[in-house]
Amino acid sequence: MPGTTDHIVKSYDNELKRLAALITSMGGMVESQVALACRAILDRDTEAADRAVAADPQVDALEREVEQFVIRLVALRQPMAQDLRLIIASLKMTGDLERIGDYAANVAKRSRVLQQFPMPYTLSGLAHMSRLVQENLKLIIDAIGEADAEKALQVWRSDAAIDEIYDALFRELITYMMEDPRNITPCTHLLFIAKNLERIGDHATNIAELIYYADKGEPLIDSRPKGDSSSSAVVRPRTAEEGGR
Amino acid sequence: MPGTTDHIVKSYDNELKRLAALITSMGGMVESQVALACRAILDRDTEAADRAVAADPQVDALEREVEQFVIRLVALRQPMAQDLRLIIASLKMTGDLERIGDYAANVAKRSRVLQQFPMPYTLSGLAHMSRLVQENLKLIIDAIGEADAEKALQVWRSDAAIDEIYDALFRELITYMMEDPRNITPCTHLLFIAKNLERIGDHATNIAELIYYADKGEPLIDSRPKGDSSSSAVVRPRTAEEGGR
Repeated sequence: MPGTTDHIVKSYDNELKRLAALITSMGGMVESQVALACRAILDRDTEAADRAVAADPQVDALEREVEQFVIRLVALRQPMAQDLRLIIASLKMTGDLERIGDYAANVAKRSRVLQQFPMPYTLSGLAHMSRLVQENLKLIIDAIGEADAEKALQVWRSDAAIDEIYDALFRELITYMMEDPRNITPCTHLLFIAKNLERIGDHATNIAELIYYADKGEPLIDSRPKGDSSSSAVVRPRTAEEGGR
Repeated sequence: MPGTTDHIVKSYDNELKRLAALITSMGGMVESQVALACRAILDRDTEAADRAVAADPQVDALEREVEQFVIRLVALRQPMAQDLRLIIASLKMTGDLERIGDYAANVAKRSRVLQQFPMPYTLSGLAHMSRLVQENLKLIIDAIGEADAEKALQVWRSDAAIDEIYDALFRELITYMMEDPRNITPCTHLLFIAKNLERIGDHATNIAELIYYADKGEPLIDSRPKGDSSSSAVVRPRTAEEGGR
């Protein structure tokens, strides 16, 4: 089967570029949605929250546009081998980007609830986590635009650090909840916010795998670093006697 | 563009059937994974938990098999119009099924933590929720096999009920946490378990949309029922004075 990297048909090349441009633009939209959501939490910025939520339908519409484009492209151009792998990877990437947008919108929604509570702690751990997630997201969107498997690998490797921070945050938030029942509602929302950020990191890692696979033709999956152990976290109150039913 | 529902090439028909069979078999695998995960939680069944976690690599492998199959199918058969829509929808479905498997494995992992705690409440709400989620999952896998848009629509409509139960569970679990700090760790894991079940329901709904779209050629998205309001849930301790920092 011939590699079709040198396309005879010029307009086909343009179509592949257009596909990459569509996905990069979807990536940029999602990136700013995540930035807004983080600002909504960390700076208690209601306007940022509203904008993050409002962006969701646009992201969804762009996902559908990519899908329509891919269906037309495949039907008209009958791509093979590497091109087809790239096109299918692109389609899956938009799924990941759409989910990232959903998580950002959910973070923004929860920020509105947090406004109703005094902030139980400094948020420095969450600020750190949101910085790392945003860095990875920016990097992976660059990697999409440049079809850069090395950048993708870098994102893939640094996800373990995000998982570790999430794990630490999980334990920290539980101790705040144990200290004062008034912290339970805000900290529960913070737990889900942290989980959403961790999931955003996971989707960036998925995209990294797709970029790598589309470029190299072999999967980058089996030894994926997994740093999050919060699913098996056990945190107990300091004294078993405090608090009663 | 001609509809290619009547295929001249017999082996092409067989390939499409093989694709449907692959996805249905992936669906069946995921369905039993979810059943095991629910049993792990509700019956404190460690063996079920182990089996749910152990199934994950098989589900992932099947997803890759479908993807390889689709790439070969598209390259060789150059499908058009409705077939292409169906093939692309199939590819996206496997993504949803893979995520459902991940959520099931996560539920199973958390069940191991819960074993270390006395169960803080009867789990009747969670049992109810897991029953509805499993019903929807079974129905949607049938709908995949039969390409039945009506069944898909039924799943799509009943997701709101799952969201409502999740919402009630969220509030209920938070009150248990407020009553006794020893409940906080197990209830936090129960919160995430409930969230995972709710997400499994969402992915069943995604699949419903894909089946509908592949069949009808028009999306079933804009008026999707959304019953989950837990992202904005505010639950406060009974008296503001109890508990101190």
